[in-house]
Amino acid sequence: MYYFNLKTKFVDFTTGGDLTVFLNNQDAREQDLVDSDRLIMSWVGGQESVAVEINLTDSLVSAGEIGLSLEVKDQLQIQEGAFIKLSLLGIPESVKAIAKQLEGGELSYEEVYSVVADLVSRRLDDVTAAFYIASAYWEQNSSRQKMYYLTKAMVETGKHFDFGENVVDKHSTGGLCGNRITPIMVAIVTSQGVKMPKTSSRAVTSPSGTADTFEVLASVTFNAEEVKEIIKETNGCVIWGAGGIAPADNRIIDLARQLPAESFPKMITSIMSKKIAMGAKYLIIDIPVNPTAKVKTLGEAQEIEELFVYLGKRFGIKVQVVSYYSLGPVGRGIGPALEARDILRVMQRKQNRPLDLEKKSVYYSGELLELVGKVENGQGRKIAQEALDSGKAWQQMQRIIKAQKGNPDIDSEAIEIGSVTHDVRAIKEGRVRAINDDSLDWTTKALGAPVIKKAGTYLYKLTGEMVKKGDLLCRFYTTGQSRMDLTLETLKNHQIYEIE
Amino acid sequence: MYYFNLKTKFVDFTTGGDLTVFLNNQDAREQDLVDSDRLIMSWVGGQESVAVEINLTDSLVSAGEIGLSLEVKDQLQIQEGAFIKLSLLGIPESVKAIAKQLEGGELSYEEVYSVVADLVSRRLDDVTAAFYIASAYWEQNSSRQKMYYLTKAMVETGKHFDFGENVVDKHSTGGLCGNRITPIMVAIVTSQGVKMPKTSSRAVTSPSGTADTFEVLASVTFNAEEVKEIIKETNGCVIWGAGGIAPADNRIIDLARQLPAESFPKMITSIMSKKIAMGAKYLIIDIPVNPTAKVKTLGEAQEIEELFVYLGKRFGIKVQVVSYYSLGPVGRGIGPALEARDILRVMQRKQNRPLDLEKKSVYYSGELLELVGKVENGQGRKIAQEALDSGKAWQQMQRIIKAQKGNPDIDSEAIEIGSVTHDVRAIKEGRVRAINDDSLDWTTKALGAPVIKKAGTYLYKLTGEMVKKGDLLCRFYTTGQSRMDLTLETLKNHQIYEIE
Repeated sequence: MYYFNLKTKFVDFTTGGDLTVFLNNQDAREQDLVDSDRLIMSWVGGQESVAVEINLTDSLVSAGEIGLSLEVKDQLQIQEGAFIKLSLLGIPESVKAIAKQLEGGELSYEEVYSVVADLVSRRLDDVTAAFYIASAYWEQNSSRQKMYYLTKAMVETGKHFDFGENVVDKHSTGGLCGNRITPIMVAIVTSQGVKMPKTSSRAVTSPSGTADTFEVLASVTFNAEEVKEIIKETNGCVIWGAGGIAPADNRIIDLARQLPAESFPKMITSIMSKKIAMGAKYLIIDIPVNPTAKVKTLGEAQEIEELFVYLGKRFGIKVQVVSYYSLGPVGRGIGPALEARDILRVMQRKQNRPLDLEKKSVYYSGELLELVGKVENGQGRKIAQEALDSGKAWQQMQRIIKAQKGNPDIDSEAIEIGSVTHDVRAIKEGRVRAINDDSLDWTTKALGAPVIKKAGTYLYKLTGEMVKKGDLLCRFYTTGQSRMDLTLETLKNHQIYEIE
Repeated sequence: MYYFNLKTKFVDFTTGGDLTVFLNNQDAREQDLVDSDRLIMSWVGGQESVAVEINLTDSLVSAGEIGLSLEVKDQLQIQEGAFIKLSLLGIPESVKAIAKQLEGGELSYEEVYSVVADLVSRRLDDVTAAFYIASAYWEQNSSRQKMYYLTKAMVETGKHFDFGENVVDKHSTGGLCGNRITPIMVAIVTSQGVKMPKTSSRAVTSPSGTADTFEVLASVTFNAEEVKEIIKETNGCVIWGAGGIAPADNRIIDLARQLPAESFPKMITSIMSKKIAMGAKYLIIDIPVNPTAKVKTLGEAQEIEELFVYLGKRFGIKVQVVSYYSLGPVGRGIGPALEARDILRVMQRKQNRPLDLEKKSVYYSGELLELVGKVENGQGRKIAQEALDSGKAWQQMQRIIKAQKGNPDIDSEAIEIGSVTHDVRAIKEGRVRAINDDSLDWTTKALGAPVIKKAGTYLYKLTGEMVKKGDLLCRFYTTGQSRMDLTLETLKNHQIYEIE
């Protein structure tokens, strides 16, 4: 294969999306390259080769140089002035498998693996990857075999961990606002000597994922060696799936981020690939059911349960599913900072802590302790509550925050919240019949969550409560007036409170 | 809605993909914007507002300025120093319809229209648009009603023409290399006083579309007023669907360009939306059938024929379909410049002209003249051949090339072809049993076609011919050694000639 070399130069701006680099028109002419050609880059000290797209310039970089934007510099950790070896990338062969699947064909495991590997190496560009994701993860009546292949390929194209037998995990199918029980559970469960190396999602369809929320308290991005070190020290973590754990899943989540819903095959393979890669042996799946949540009926919950149990068996994980009809959000804060504040209020035993969040966290922690055999059946909840009450769980969370480079001494009330606010008030008297999760998603995303951590919605009234005309229902928080205007526009089509 | 204003500054580089602009970090902080936020831009003199994505910088542009890349400058035709009004764009509501369809739901016409309109205005980003295209245009068992809705929305979100009753058109389903009969037909048919305002596709899955090929001879991008002028002057044109004719189709083709195949619903709605917008009243569809072409069996051809006829009826177009079993490429040159040379060799009556290309062009021109009622049944072919032989068709093509700003005096042998070549020779004696269209696609695209006009493959041996060991089968042309190396790699998995 033909190669050429260029010297790196950093350029002072971001480019977003596909990784792009800048070449001088003179080099492009000499190397016979055109705008938007894709190249493979490799360099001394770089772990593997990476696919990038070229943009052309006369003045931004000189001949002999390659311009790297701020993201490329951050993601690839190249030194300025380093030499990079480049070669032309053809259309990857895996597009044939993508076309086959778009047309309804069944892929072999080798074909699935080839596409997933090209997703990870970025040989597939964003748009072509989106075609694959639409066809592979949204297929109606996806077969169990296909979901097994996808999950296996997503695990095998990344790093794996083995922390022994005593390893538990938990996941919620989501679509329920708030519901930040995970960090509390990690603290409770690991305070009892069980390992819980938790990889959490960033927001998929919601205004904040557990990883977005925990990032308010600590860093959530670590490489594989660092993760091992954190688990060795504390038994637990709450991290985003970085460090090469099922890296295809991260790219899939990122590409599908604008869609307001996800399919069950996509959700299930995403969750399971991370759990398998992290070496979980016991797993609790939380399925809240509600017409405005992700899982809308108990019948759907049943189908999903069967798929989780099936995949668990194929990969040697004992899965327990808890599905139940949910009345609405859990906790009162929606959005990264407000959710992190709710978590700390529970951990720090504040008077104003959300009791529904506490109760749910204790329940699931108890189930998990019983599932792994750490405590006798029927004793889990009691022990979990004691860990919270005694402060043992909070001390454990402090250790984890510290290991993840956060401030372990932060007080719940010191968390910064956006200073631009708007109060939503009741326009009539009555009872809150429902809080619409879907509308809360739209409005809270319009406020800027999850990217803007301080943005969010705080619920003053919950389902079932009586309100008088003019009562404060909820408060919006963000950082600027333009987003608040956009949110108030959004609110017109997305009413949060249903009052009867 | 909240607005702010910035002054334009051109930056000297391309960015590719979604339209991106550059903002200074200070403005971003003041306006409460973050990297990759999407904005709506409007400006005095601009026809409509456009969605763009922002990238951030400290030094590339100053506070108060907005940086426009070379493509944004070209596409939007803004003056440097002009003031642009910007406002924040939320996630468009049409993503709900996309999610509904991904999950197998049926969309109403209003929902289809909302998504197609957001495709055109670019409120939908590239990746989210790809999710829609995968779900809308690749659906198995797509209903006729759905194809009608898609076609109608694609027409209604763009400009329409009305050139009267006497308007014909032609399209090939493609997937057959070479096969550049269209420009020849336009010249023959319009020389007989029939109007043929031909919008041609750029390459969809092949190494060159008719528009890519004709661009070697003339410009193919014109606005609506210019198109009217060209038709008034010459009765015919060969243009790429610019000027706002079914603009959604252009974006769809562009986004799906890496895929090696397209679905029939996508192909049919694409073809019909352009014909309807151009005001065609009579249409011939050419369906070459071959196991390595786009349509693989006569059964498939039958299904497709019915769909074309159905849509034709709904939109008032008389459609005639010609499907036949094809033996391989038509003409000897594959790739823009080599195909343009074949066309001129036919028009200019050169000794070395490809007779299969001539014969097919004459046949279809005759059919079209009969369909529109210009000549009596059974006379079409004779009159078409006379137009070629007499030089009348070539004079007509010269008028069209001139109207489309090309050089009407160009000789077939003056067309520039890539200077880096490689000869593919027979490794054994025998008869050419088949030429694999699919392999010709892959290798010719690896040479750089259609972006690199001079790149291509010239076939010295055709199906059925006897060859001796060492005989020249075909020659590759490109502009640099790196692409030739990539092509020779590609050739290993994609043999072009099958010799028995």
